[in-house]
Amino acid sequence: MTSPLPPGSTLGILGGGQLGRMLSQAASRLGFNVVILDPKENSPAGRVSQGQIIAAYDDPTALSVLGQTCQAVTFEFENVPASSVQALIEGGASVSPGPGALAVAQDRVDEKTFLNGVGATTVDFAPVDGLDDLLAALQRLGSPALLKTRREGYDGKGQIWVRSAAMAADAWHAIGRRPAILEARADFRRELSVIAARGRDGAIAVYPLGENIHADGVLKTTLAPAHVDAGTQARATAIAEAILNGLDYVGVLGVELFDLGPDVDEGARLLVNEIAPRVHNTGHWTQDGCVCDQFEQHIRAIAGWPLGPTTAHFRVEMTNLLGDEVEQWSKLSGKSDARLHLYGKAEARPGRKMGHVNRVKPL
Amino acid sequence: MTSPLPPGSTLGILGGGQLGRMLSQAASRLGFNVVILDPKENSPAGRVSQGQIIAAYDDPTALSVLGQTCQAVTFEFENVPASSVQALIEGGASVSPGPGALAVAQDRVDEKTFLNGVGATTVDFAPVDGLDDLLAALQRLGSPALLKTRREGYDGKGQIWVRSAAMAADAWHAIGRRPAILEARADFRRELSVIAARGRDGAIAVYPLGENIHADGVLKTTLAPAHVDAGTQARATAIAEAILNGLDYVGVLGVELFDLGPDVDEGARLLVNEIAPRVHNTGHWTQDGCVCDQFEQHIRAIAGWPLGPTTAHFRVEMTNLLGDEVEQWSKLSGKSDARLHLYGKAEARPGRKMGHVNRVKPL
Repeated sequence: MTSPLPPGSTLGILGGGQLGRMLSQAASRLGFNVVILDPKENSPAGRVSQGQIIAAYDDPTALSVLGQTCQAVTFEFENVPASSVQALIEGGASVSPGPGALAVAQDRVDEKTFLNGVGATTVDFAPVDGLDDLLAALQRLGSPALLKTRREGYDGKGQIWVRSAAMAADAWHAIGRRPAILEARADFRRELSVIAARGRDGAIAVYPLGENIHADGVLKTTLAPAHVDAGTQARATAIAEAILNGLDYVGVLGVELFDLGPDVDEGARLLVNEIAPRVHNTGHWTQDGCVCDQFEQHIRAIAGWPLGPTTAHFRVEMTNLLGDEVEQWSKLSGKSDARLHLYGKAEARPGRKMGHVNRVKPL
Repeated sequence: MTSPLPPGSTLGILGGGQLGRMLSQAASRLGFNVVILDPKENSPAGRVSQGQIIAAYDDPTALSVLGQTCQAVTFEFENVPASSVQALIEGGASVSPGPGALAVAQDRVDEKTFLNGVGATTVDFAPVDGLDDLLAALQRLGSPALLKTRREGYDGKGQIWVRSAAMAADAWHAIGRRPAILEARADFRRELSVIAARGRDGAIAVYPLGENIHADGVLKTTLAPAHVDAGTQARATAIAEAILNGLDYVGVLGVELFDLGPDVDEGARLLVNEIAPRVHNTGHWTQDGCVCDQFEQHIRAIAGWPLGPTTAHFRVEMTNLLGDEVEQWSKLSGKSDARLHLYGKAEARPGRKMGHVNRVKPL
């Protein structure tokens, strides 16, 4: 790939949802053409892009066409089959983040093993391949503990709290008796996240921390920049840098953190919950809080451009509009501090991410 | 038209250039689908929109389809044939700005007559329908004076300075002996412009003034908010309001002003040069200087939404990238205060508007 990739080049995005849509809009602003691959026609991202290939994510012909059409390819979700990445690379495209980062992010045991290896501490955990493993792990980690499938699952899907050894068998059945991980409970005060990017040249840019509030396992609100002391921001930045460098990463990465609170020693106060090798819902505040938002930052990184600035000029409260909450658009459209971002999804199914609103205020 | 028009509705835009492109991007952010009408396939706007109808702007079938597909229709250029607007309205679409505003903006004599009628003073002028008219007008207005065709022409095209009566015949030939206007020379200190919007409910929102620098008749740079005293901003706001109300206007309007300087009485200091019934190149600074930019503002207005805020949080220097100046993208991409907006045009012909850059700094 020519680096930096000149405007007029074509970028490919796997996934036509809201993240692909906002990536595509950022790429267009920089003069790139965008092609989406998504099995559902008329996707939110396809509707704002030059083209959409309607095919499965592992369709060999579709991947070959995409690889030959696009100089750089990225994705809006992390569960891209390794074989698809391989096919894209063979088609001639540069794929970012690369296969290594994807592999780590696709398996929760590999992810936590990697994280601890680069000094980004997590809760204690144990791989679980059967009921015996689960009982032994419960013994060691204590209960309640969180049982998750090793692969797939998001927004709280594919996971269950195991509150006692008596519940173990039911829990093991509930997650489908698939390879799993048991995670010790973190006694955290709040959930933070940091959005960071690494360029092709190894340069790193880190946004201010956000504080997140979840409901039913789904992100409800991010407040950013979060109210944190300088030491906490510095520690989060160091964690993000260790992860990005450890993965030889190119693009934007989201890091979810548990903040154990001020009573814990500064170096141990933040635990990594999980990482997402892509733009992240908790980074949507950057669209209205920063000169260069996470979507443009990701495009800059994968296209080999210099990273943009990450300082905030507004404090932002980002709220997801889930399901019929999107009907609030009318009320919100009249609020002078509210910036609406709607995804163009036709059906407002319960819990579906339909849009978000950024409420801006002076820092 | 349902007002406010709900997200998920389809908007039509006549014209697939950069203004249509940025309007489309703003509309998508608010959850609208966008269809472009432009005779050139794969237009800059078409590439970021759900669809493009490739047909002439006066093609009856195309206009009928667009009118039936779109709940609201707007345009990126003012020379839309009146018959096209009529066809769109018959197709069922709401067209904003409406036929009345378009008619005034399409004829320089009608425009100046209207402006003076609502108290928005212009230079002295005279209609010119032949060489005798021109000589008489020159006598009255003095020379040099500016001869322009009454209709069409932009960026300095279709106009010529007449420096003496001896030049009159050549000038009359040069503009093609078409119905024209002769405008007295304004002894101005600088060129300002004001971008303003009026909603369906008659509400008006006015952005801070910009100061513009032209080269060879084409806009080079806008600095905004311009350094002006409160009286000048108030006078510009009053002028914009008078024009918007006088036209019963819906949408964003650009008003180019001559600033005669501080020696002139405050009420007479600003003359209106011309108006553009659309988003305007001198309003591009709002993309990075304001929470709600001129493109979203226009979409809000034509969709019957409340207008957004117009206060600036940055001072912006907007510079057009003309022709091969777009090659500066690489250097500009590394400047932390530079926000690039590239239009995706393939061919960098001399003088062609390829993109712009907003340099932001604290107010």
